[in-house]
Amino acid sequence: MIETYVEILLIEDNPNDVRLALHAFKRNNLTNRIYVIRDGAEALEFLFCTDRYAQRNPRNSPNLILLDLKLPLIDGLEVLRRIKADPRTRIIPVVILTSSREERNIVESYQLGVNSYIAKPVDFEQFVEAVRTLGLYWVLLNHPPIL
Amino acid sequence: MIETYVEILLIEDNPNDVRLALHAFKRNNLTNRIYVIRDGAEALEFLFCTDRYAQRNPRNSPNLILLDLKLPLIDGLEVLRRIKADPRTRIIPVVILTSSREERNIVESYQLGVNSYIAKPVDFEQFVEAVRTLGLYWVLLNHPPIL
Repeated sequence: MIETYVEILLIEDNPNDVRLALHAFKRNNLTNRIYVIRDGAEALEFLFCTDRYAQRNPRNSPNLILLDLKLPLIDGLEVLRRIKADPRTRIIPVVILTSSREERNIVESYQLGVNSYIAKPVDFEQFVEAVRTLGLYWVLLNHPPIL
Repeated sequence: MIETYVEILLIEDNPNDVRLALHAFKRNNLTNRIYVIRDGAEALEFLFCTDRYAQRNPRNSPNLILLDLKLPLIDGLEVLRRIKADPRTRIIPVVILTSSREERNIVESYQLGVNSYIAKPVDFEQFVEAVRTLGLYWVLLNHPPIL
């Protein structure tokens, strides 16, 4: 249970990718207020304040969701579909951050209303640089829907 | 009439803002393939290949639309609504780039499915820096829906 304000919600199951992402955020001074969830079912409970997160304050929506596609229990495209189908959550920016470069995943993500789609660079330094640009853009430049 | 591939479509009526944006893109080596349209009606004709753009190839969708809110003939929110309501155009990333910081414009833009909302910095150097980050993110990092 968390009661504090979450700025970035990272939905990613691969422990190595979580570690890499947190390391990249830390190197770019963007560690504050990142919350990590490792499967799609828990992500939806968090966002809709149900089950394990029934006591969470729904006003504390994250300013940004980073979403992997391959997730246990409920996959990323279904999580995206539910976020964008509900007026309470559709205004939250969602960035797909995935190793998939499959055309059908990319097109379906945009059709479902994803805000941005990033194919993870395989090279570590390029990955850190990608997270830096992503953080600069979404944390510092983009105007979030909820203040 | 243009037949070439447009990478960025800038929809902005204020000549000073157009000049500033093109200057900022140029300073950041992002000038290729920017096409400027100065009112909402012509923007919709361009995107849906009608009227003045009836001969345009609809396959040449831009990879990114930069959209001002205050536009002649048809305003930016209505242009956004029509882009996001049509399956042919809803996958194109749209970034609102505006001087408006009004909460209702921000919330309505996200409800309509905008990909990102940027309030133009008033200071010139900050504006150039914002366009640089915007270009890095959408041209180099984001994976576009159409290849």
